[in-house]
Amino acid sequence: MRYNAELIAVGTELLLGNIANTDAQMLSEGLSALGIDVYYHTVVGDNPQRLKDALAIAKGRANIIITTGGLGPTYDDLTKQTICESFGVPLEFHPEVWEDIKSYFLKRMKGKAITENNRQQAMLPVGCTVFYNDVGTAPGCAMACGDTRVIMLPGPPYECRYLFTHKVVPYLKDLTHEKIFSHSLRIFGMGESQVEAVLHDMMVEGANPTLAPYAKTGEVQLRATAKAPTEEAAEEMLRPVLEKVRGTLGDVVYGTDVASLEEVVLAELKTRGRTLSAAESCTGGLIAKRVTDLPGASAVFRGGVVSYTNGVKESALGVPRDLLDTYGAVSEPVAVAMAEGCRNLCGSDYALSVTGVAGPDRDDRGNAVGTVFIALSSPNGTVCRQVDLTRGRSRGHIRHLAASHAFDLLRRRLLDLPL
Amino acid sequence: MRYNAELIAVGTELLLGNIANTDAQMLSEGLSALGIDVYYHTVVGDNPQRLKDALAIAKGRANIIITTGGLGPTYDDLTKQTICESFGVPLEFHPEVWEDIKSYFLKRMKGKAITENNRQQAMLPVGCTVFYNDVGTAPGCAMACGDTRVIMLPGPPYECRYLFTHKVVPYLKDLTHEKIFSHSLRIFGMGESQVEAVLHDMMVEGANPTLAPYAKTGEVQLRATAKAPTEEAAEEMLRPVLEKVRGTLGDVVYGTDVASLEEVVLAELKTRGRTLSAAESCTGGLIAKRVTDLPGASAVFRGGVVSYTNGVKESALGVPRDLLDTYGAVSEPVAVAMAEGCRNLCGSDYALSVTGVAGPDRDDRGNAVGTVFIALSSPNGTVCRQVDLTRGRSRGHIRHLAASHAFDLLRRRLLDLPL
Repeated sequence: MRYNAELIAVGTELLLGNIANTDAQMLSEGLSALGIDVYYHTVVGDNPQRLKDALAIAKGRANIIITTGGLGPTYDDLTKQTICESFGVPLEFHPEVWEDIKSYFLKRMKGKAITENNRQQAMLPVGCTVFYNDVGTAPGCAMACGDTRVIMLPGPPYECRYLFTHKVVPYLKDLTHEKIFSHSLRIFGMGESQVEAVLHDMMVEGANPTLAPYAKTGEVQLRATAKAPTEEAAEEMLRPVLEKVRGTLGDVVYGTDVASLEEVVLAELKTRGRTLSAAESCTGGLIAKRVTDLPGASAVFRGGVVSYTNGVKESALGVPRDLLDTYGAVSEPVAVAMAEGCRNLCGSDYALSVTGVAGPDRDDRGNAVGTVFIALSSPNGTVCRQVDLTRGRSRGHIRHLAASHAFDLLRRRLLDLPL
Repeated sequence: MRYNAELIAVGTELLLGNIANTDAQMLSEGLSALGIDVYYHTVVGDNPQRLKDALAIAKGRANIIITTGGLGPTYDDLTKQTICESFGVPLEFHPEVWEDIKSYFLKRMKGKAITENNRQQAMLPVGCTVFYNDVGTAPGCAMACGDTRVIMLPGPPYECRYLFTHKVVPYLKDLTHEKIFSHSLRIFGMGESQVEAVLHDMMVEGANPTLAPYAKTGEVQLRATAKAPTEEAAEEMLRPVLEKVRGTLGDVVYGTDVASLEEVVLAELKTRGRTLSAAESCTGGLIAKRVTDLPGASAVFRGGVVSYTNGVKESALGVPRDLLDTYGAVSEPVAVAMAEGCRNLCGSDYALSVTGVAGPDRDDRGNAVGTVFIALSSPNGTVCRQVDLTRGRSRGHIRHLAASHAFDLLRRRLLDLPL
């Protein structure tokens, strides 16, 4: 049986634009990796009739329906009741789920009293598969109605992701008997259209394995997916594909099954027992922020300086005043002095620096928005690169790309690749 | 005539989970401010038949349909053609639009050749209202089909937002003749349920003006909306509501029609001609990043130090070693020394510091995840507050809340409010 899924998010806050439907993104990515097609996302408010209408439409075009949201303890949380009415399945009280919710309250919600409303959360469809929630109070569940599976997940992104990853993925693998295995290659330094042009012959629809590119901010992700009876057989099929892609694209491929450039750089530094610091002007703390977003960053990242003014470049990083006067803050000599000063100050093995014009206006020396210098100071000297981000779409975009270029410069230095 | 809108996003990349549907969030927020209800969002892939099906459903339940995406120059950009087939309206070549696209290419896409494909972008429905795109090549448009209006916008968020704000909002105001005016109050330091409890009497559905709360990360937004024949009359109606809310909630209301705490703090500092710096441990650059996300930050923000290790707290901020040894990095004395050292180093009027445990694990002294100290050094001395974020949902959540608390401490100091 061929499965395809429809996602229905329930929540008036989505229709009011308070939040983006990031649950749909996370679920879509996960379903795609399982080889389950998603043809539609729908968002409805906390309105039983409109949810019923959406369910009726979804029933007609998908055999897996996944809802997110509306499982909370308050009066407008109507997803379970509405789905059960739509499919003619009664709700029943699950004592073991109630025990689980109570014990979560005791452990995690110190000082907050459990209410009768929370008891509602232990009401689940008769005969359903319960997905116990270890990170919140609302359990998820799955029920089979004829050929349709309906899966209900809580809306808060952290809980939704947790339940999907730990409970729904195994459930769906059992259901579909699909033996789908995939790897994802991450690329920095080559655009999506160029990747497509170079690998055109390998991107054949319906092939096995398939190879498909996705654009991310300033990056490209390539997913290779194989259908095979066993994981070993799939790996056997995927190996030559991955090798050919790496051989064709070369060192712009920065990792397999990794999340980001900073994750790769952090891991490489950790392996070598080396430390990092960063001196940031136009990125204004973004490099530090992206590194310290990662748990375990403290093993590698010593810290850094956000030198948003010439005064701080002098006082904190020891950039000589005459360099600033002669070349201006956005220049190679200043980028080099920032990196070296930062390495000194923080006592790190490596130090990155970024100075440039993020916009909206040119700097006082007339440098165009998107002019950026990146330097890397390391045990064997300092290198500097000018990168041209003048086509950057916005201040935020330029800052993100500048930080990514800095991580890539460090990656190339650590791996002895051409800089 | 009562209008309600349905949003249809077209793009396989959304169904694969490569991107979140942020266009829908932006449009929903904008439509809500115009008093236009949104009952459904739909996402479909680049597939003409499924788009046709989605359009047929939308026609039956909305009288304004707004599509995003699929207006590009490539073969899979099929939105216009499909909509025109669905509504029986032919496409025609618009020479003035073609001239506009060519001049955009000349100005902005240096070095990139215009192709025959781009000419497709000048094909638009007969009789439509053209929304010229000043920030990209794909124009938007609106067409009237009986009682239904169909509005097509490009998918890239920057272009979508630009066209919506500058072209679609005036178009919709003309269409609906709705005289809707609203203000938005931002609240930090009181939860959504408490705000609802305190203002319950003012939140009457169908009232004029209406008052409605929305939860943001660690914050609450309250929107007051009035229907009135003129802006002056609306302001007259809104004034007592806003005053009553401010009177009831007090100083947790940090601004009206502002985007964030950091925006308010930046403006207050700018007015006073004062400068800021930040010393960050667990927030790891997030305070600096949030401030420098704002254009014009350089007038106020001098820079800062990300002191992720004790070594950098000593070398860059001059935190005495014995404080670190005696009290540990996550302590009031260290937070105070960080703020004072940072103010010194950066020569700023104010300096914020944050030190705490963002997780995933307790620190080496056994401080729980979510234990955070925030200090503010200013011309009249240094204050420190411990904030309890042990209920924070994740590392990222704790870091965001810690930075927000720091901004709020500064706001309170600048405005002489209780700290």
